[in-house]
Amino acid sequence: MSVLVVGSTALDSIATPNAKNPRLLGGSASHAGVAASFFSPVTVVGVVGDDFPQRYIQLYQKHGIDLTGLQRIPGKTFHWSGEYEIDMNNRRTLATELGVFADFSPKLPPACQKTPYVLLANIAPSLQAHVLDQMRRPKFVVADTMDLWLNIALADLLKLIRRVDALVLNDSEARQLTGDPNVISALGKIHKLGPRYVIVKKGEHGSILSGPSGLFVAPAYPLLKVVDPTGAGDSFVGGMMGYLASQKGSIEKNLRRGMVYGSVVASFCCAGFGLKHTTKVTRADIEKRFRQLEKITRF
Amino acid sequence: MSVLVVGSTALDSIATPNAKNPRLLGGSASHAGVAASFFSPVTVVGVVGDDFPQRYIQLYQKHGIDLTGLQRIPGKTFHWSGEYEIDMNNRRTLATELGVFADFSPKLPPACQKTPYVLLANIAPSLQAHVLDQMRRPKFVVADTMDLWLNIALADLLKLIRRVDALVLNDSEARQLTGDPNVISALGKIHKLGPRYVIVKKGEHGSILSGPSGLFVAPAYPLLKVVDPTGAGDSFVGGMMGYLASQKGSIEKNLRRGMVYGSVVASFCCAGFGLKHTTKVTRADIEKRFRQLEKITRF
Repeated sequence: MSVLVVGSTALDSIATPNAKNPRLLGGSASHAGVAASFFSPVTVVGVVGDDFPQRYIQLYQKHGIDLTGLQRIPGKTFHWSGEYEIDMNNRRTLATELGVFADFSPKLPPACQKTPYVLLANIAPSLQAHVLDQMRRPKFVVADTMDLWLNIALADLLKLIRRVDALVLNDSEARQLTGDPNVISALGKIHKLGPRYVIVKKGEHGSILSGPSGLFVAPAYPLLKVVDPTGAGDSFVGGMMGYLASQKGSIEKNLRRGMVYGSVVASFCCAGFGLKHTTKVTRADIEKRFRQLEKITRF
Repeated sequence: MSVLVVGSTALDSIATPNAKNPRLLGGSASHAGVAASFFSPVTVVGVVGDDFPQRYIQLYQKHGIDLTGLQRIPGKTFHWSGEYEIDMNNRRTLATELGVFADFSPKLPPACQKTPYVLLANIAPSLQAHVLDQMRRPKFVVADTMDLWLNIALADLLKLIRRVDALVLNDSEARQLTGDPNVISALGKIHKLGPRYVIVKKGEHGSILSGPSGLFVAPAYPLLKVVDPTGAGDSFVGGMMGYLASQKGSIEKNLRRGMVYGSVVASFCCAGFGLKHTTKVTRADIEKRFRQLEKITRF
């Protein structure tokens, strides 16, 4: 089955102590869409300006991504600029230029409205809700979010998460949302806000799922070198959704393996700037790391 | 087989936002010794003053711990006092009174010198080395340490770790020791300092082993409530060593399960102040949580 991914489609300028990389292909929908495309057909819904490089369109197409939901309009593409320290856990935003994203209102082509798997990748919760309004009885809806929306659009976010099957957020966001410093007890509080599944991302420490059959603790793939973690969380949730859409049987049955596949795609994301490494990966590379994760977690 | 545990035997005064607990049984050797005692015979080597409560001696004895290596001398028992914030990851030391520990020089009774499993729990590396000097061909030697010794006794620590089979330290200490912000690549650098096995403790995020057959990523037991994490790291390494000493076959074969048993005992440690909860636990309780960890990490 196929996955609809809505989120940001951006140009990212990323600096580290060792390198500067201007105007990379970025944004939550780009990372999540490419990640999902290793497993299932993907439609990306987003907006870009007339400065958006044609080679990035070709990169989406190389991954078989359906672009009928990608609006191209006059103006500048959303541009994010950030800088990492030597310890990649520390990053600061240098600039956020919304461009054509400022007035974005996702409008789904009729053919997309019946997509069974819906990934509301990280954008404003009001836009995520607007997409959900246009969907017809999706099978599984996942929303990702970030601290920005907890800070400036909490009411919208709370309204949205009542309507999704799964909420994905990172550990500091789970603490912020619930006011609970303990992530495990925070999970229970987030279920009370609506979602049947809650997934907390912990970066290099892996992720935790809470659902009807209890907890699952998923490993991160151990990386000797992190080049650029931008988009790793988006890759995680994209890979997970792509895998889920590719499998028969219940969500319950497939979600654990989906998270591990998500970890694998996220690990490839971290190995290059932007999508540079992810877009060179094959499904065989992914299977190899999946088997390594099986091996290094067995006891 | 049996485990020799050398480390601190202390009285801990621990405050949290909700409670004050003066003069609990504490110290690295107390936590590690009790943890190991669930699996194997244990000898604790340490020193206490004449103020050391008899009920704590009885508590050791209830756990079958051999105390022939525990010196009782005139003076005050080592006393540590600390305070936790609501977020238990933040703690500060209020007082450290060495007492009889200031002049401690562990002297092993002859019967202890052939103990096959040696756990050099957290104390000054010069004392850990002094114990090792007295051992006769131990089968497996593990050293635990802490940031204090990296700061004030680095040369001693580097000398010691060349002589041990396994070094256990937490993630921030691994970064400090190697100057490498990436824990995975830090592991390789620590191997070059001597130990065949390196185990990095990451608290609520579990632990990582690096050894001859590669990496192992071990889960932490997810806790809804942490009452007092003091001694959790000591309990982890103690439980691990106790399990190893109880098993036939190679270290290589048993170490992964040993770490998971260590995680389980550490989780019980966190559920009460000092050793209050750990000392109420049964082997059946431990097996139950071990099976839960198997279940919540399977994919």
